Amino acid sequence: MRTAKRTDVVLAVDIGGTKVAAGLVAADGSLSAHRVVPTSGGTAECAWQPVAQMVREVHACVGERRLVGVGVGSAGPLDLAAGTVSPVNIPAWRGFPLRDRLAALVPGVPVHLAGDGACAAAGEHWHGAGRGADDLLVIVVSTGVGGGLVQRGRLVTGPSGNAGHIGHTVVDVDGDPCPCGGRGCVEAIASGPQMVAWAVRQGWSPGVGGASSDGTPPGGTLWGGASLAVVSAAVLAAAARTGDAVARQAFDRAGRALAAGAVSAAALCDLSRVVVGGGVARAADLLFPPLRTALAGYAHLDFLRGLTVRRAALGTAAGLVGAAALVFAPDRYPVTPATDRR
Amino acid sequence: MRTAKRTDVVLAVDIGGTKVAAGLVAADGSLSAHRVVPTSGGTAECAWQPVAQMVREVHACVGERRLVGVGVGSAGPLDLAAGTVSPVNIPAWRGFPLRDRLAALVPGVPVHLAGDGACAAAGEHWHGAGRGADDLLVIVVSTGVGGGLVQRGRLVTGPSGNAGHIGHTVVDVDGDPCPCGGRGCVEAIASGPQMVAWAVRQGWSPGVGGASSDGTPPGGTLWGGASLAVVSAAVLAAAARTGDAVARQAFDRAGRALAAGAVSAAALCDLSRVVVGGGVARAADLLFPPLRTALAGYAHLDFLRGLTVRRAALGTAAGLVGAAALVFAPDRYPVTPATDRR
Repeated sequence: MRTAKRTDVVLAVDIGGTKVAAGLVAADGSLSAHRVVPTSGGTAECAWQPVAQMVREVHACVGERRLVGVGVGSAGPLDLAAGTVSPVNIPAWRGFPLRDRLAALVPGVPVHLAGDGACAAAGEHWHGAGRGADDLLVIVVSTGVGGGLVQRGRLVTGPSGNAGHIGHTVVDVDGDPCPCGGRGCVEAIASGPQMVAWAVRQGWSPGVGGASSDGTPPGGTLWGGASLAVVSAAVLAAAARTGDAVARQAFDRAGRALAAGAVSAAALCDLSRVVVGGGVARAADLLFPPLRTALAGYAHLDFLRGLTVRRAALGTAAGLVGAAALVFAPDRYPVTPATDRR
Repeated sequence: MRTAKRTDVVLAVDIGGTKVAAGLVAADGSLSAHRVVPTSGGTAECAWQPVAQMVREVHACVGERRLVGVGVGSAGPLDLAAGTVSPVNIPAWRGFPLRDRLAALVPGVPVHLAGDGACAAAGEHWHGAGRGADDLLVIVVSTGVGGGLVQRGRLVTGPSGNAGHIGHTVVDVDGDPCPCGGRGCVEAIASGPQMVAWAVRQGWSPGVGGASSDGTPPGGTLWGGASLAVVSAAVLAAAARTGDAVARQAFDRAGRALAAGAVSAAALCDLSRVVVGGGVARAADLLFPPLRTALAGYAHLDFLRGLTVRRAALGTAAGLVGAAALVFAPDRYPVTPATDRR
C-alpha cells in the first residue's frame, strides 16, 4: 500500500439530514477548509447545488497539496454497490447517484462512499477514541441513533452496506414504537427527539427555566450548528441539570438503552470497546453515568466484563475524518462490500 | 488448500454440559461411528476418562479411511489461544487442557477447538440450513441459548473466542435476572429451563395431563438423550399442544425474545439468514409461528425485511459436523483468533 505523504489531502464530505459538511483532511486527521451548509429541500438538483458549490470551494483550497481522493459519508439508506443514497431526511434524493456526481465534479481521483455511522466509526478508530481497539462499536446519538462496527481492525459494512445499525437493535421486546416502524429499538428510547417526546408524554415542557439555567435560550446557540432535535435534547439536558426529575429520567432511560445495545453488540461480536458520540452525548455528565451503571448490571460474563465505554473524541468532525480514512486506509476501511480483500 | 478426498475423515468430539458425543465425519458431512456418553462428575480426570475411552473407540473405527484431524466443540467458556475449556456444567474442568489432551490421544494430526455455538454455526453453514448464506446467525435453544456467527462466509470467533453469544444480548432492559448475572437476556426468557421456570411462576405445573397428551411420560424418552431441562421444555410443549394457556404463552415469549435477538444481530451485522436449532426448537410448531410474527413486527428497515429464519437441519449432529468443518475447511472456519488470515 502506498504510504500517505504529509502533503496528501482528501476532500471529505459529510451528508447529514439537516446539514452538509465538507473539508480537506490530511493523513494525520487534521481538518482544514471546513464548510457547513444546511441541507436544501426542493428537487434533487436543488439539494445537490449547494453541495456541489461547497465541494468546488473546498477543492479550490487544495493549493500546493496533493488531492488523493474524495471520501463521502451519507445518511442512509445507501446502496454501496450502485453508489447511490436515499437519506430519510432528504426526500428528493431517492437512489441519488452521489458517488458518480462527486466523481464528475472532482475528476481524476477515486471517490469512496460509506454510511454516516460507518464514517463516524472509521474516524474514531483512525484518529479518535477508538484508536487501538481492534473490535469496536461506535454509537452516534443524535436525531437518530446510528453507528459503525470495526472487527479485527477493519470497518465492517456488511453485504448491503448497512452493518452497524445499533439504533435498531431491540432492547425492549414490548417497547414503544420506533420511527423505523418496529418497536423497542435503542433509537425509540435514546435519540434526542424520542427522549424529548417521552419527557413531554410524562408532562415535561421545555419552559424558560430549563434552558435559561445556563444562560442559553431554548432553540438558541447552546450547541451551535446542531439540529433542532438535538437542540431540544440540549434543552432537556439543561432542565435535567436544574434537577427536573422527568428530564433526568429521560437521560437515565437513554443511558440504559444504550448500555443494553452496547452489551448486545459485545456479546454477539466479542467487542472490547464502545465509543459514544453525537449531539446528545455532549451531555456526557447526564448520559454516561447511567450508561456505565447499566452496563455493569448487564455485562457479567467474563469476556464482557472488560468492555469499556469512552466518549467520542472527534466531535462533529468524526464523519469528515472517517470519510477521509476510507481513502487514506482502504485496507482498514474498505467500502466495496462485494470485493473480497481477504 | 488441499482438497479433501472421499476417504478422508475427521474425528469429531462435542463436549456438552450433560453429554459428550464423538464420531467420524466425512467431507460430505456424513457421520459414522457415532457415540454418546453422559458427562461425568468428580475430578477432572473422572470427567476425562469416559471421553478418552470414547475417542479411542471412535479412533479404532477409522479403518482404511484416512484420519485428517480432530475437531472438537466444547461448552464454554473457552480460552482458544491456550486450548483450554471451563464448561459451566463440568465444574471439575477449569482451564482443562482439552486440545493438548486430545492431541496426545490422537497424535500426528491437527486438533482444532471451538465453542459449541461456533461449531453448530459451522455445521449448519457447511452442510445444513445455513448453506449458501454468507452472513448468518445460528441460534441453539436448549439448556441455555447459544449461537455462532458467520460473516462474509467465514466463522467469526472474535478476539476472545466468544463471538456469537446471542443468548446474552439484552432484549428487555427491565427484564428478569439471567443465569449469567445480568438481566433481560434472550436466555433469561427463551432457554428451556427459563421457559419452564416462568410457566411455574405463573402457576403452571407439569401434571400428568400435559405430558401424556402424546403418550410420553414426563422426564421420559420424549426426546431421547436430551437433558432433563430440555425434557422439561418438552413437557411444557406437550401442555401447550393440549391448549394450556400459560404453556403457550411461554413459547410465545420465547419466540418473541429470539426474534428480538435475531433482528438485533441482523441490524448490527447486516445478516441475511438466521437458523434456529437446539432441543427447544424441536417444538417448531410452537416456537416458530410467534418467532416469525414478532420478526415481522421488529424488522421494518429495508435491509432487515429480507431476513429469513430457518429451522436447523442437522439436529444434534450439528456440533460434530461443525467440529469436522474446522478441520476440513479452516479457511472458512478458522479457530485461531490470534492468527491473521486476511
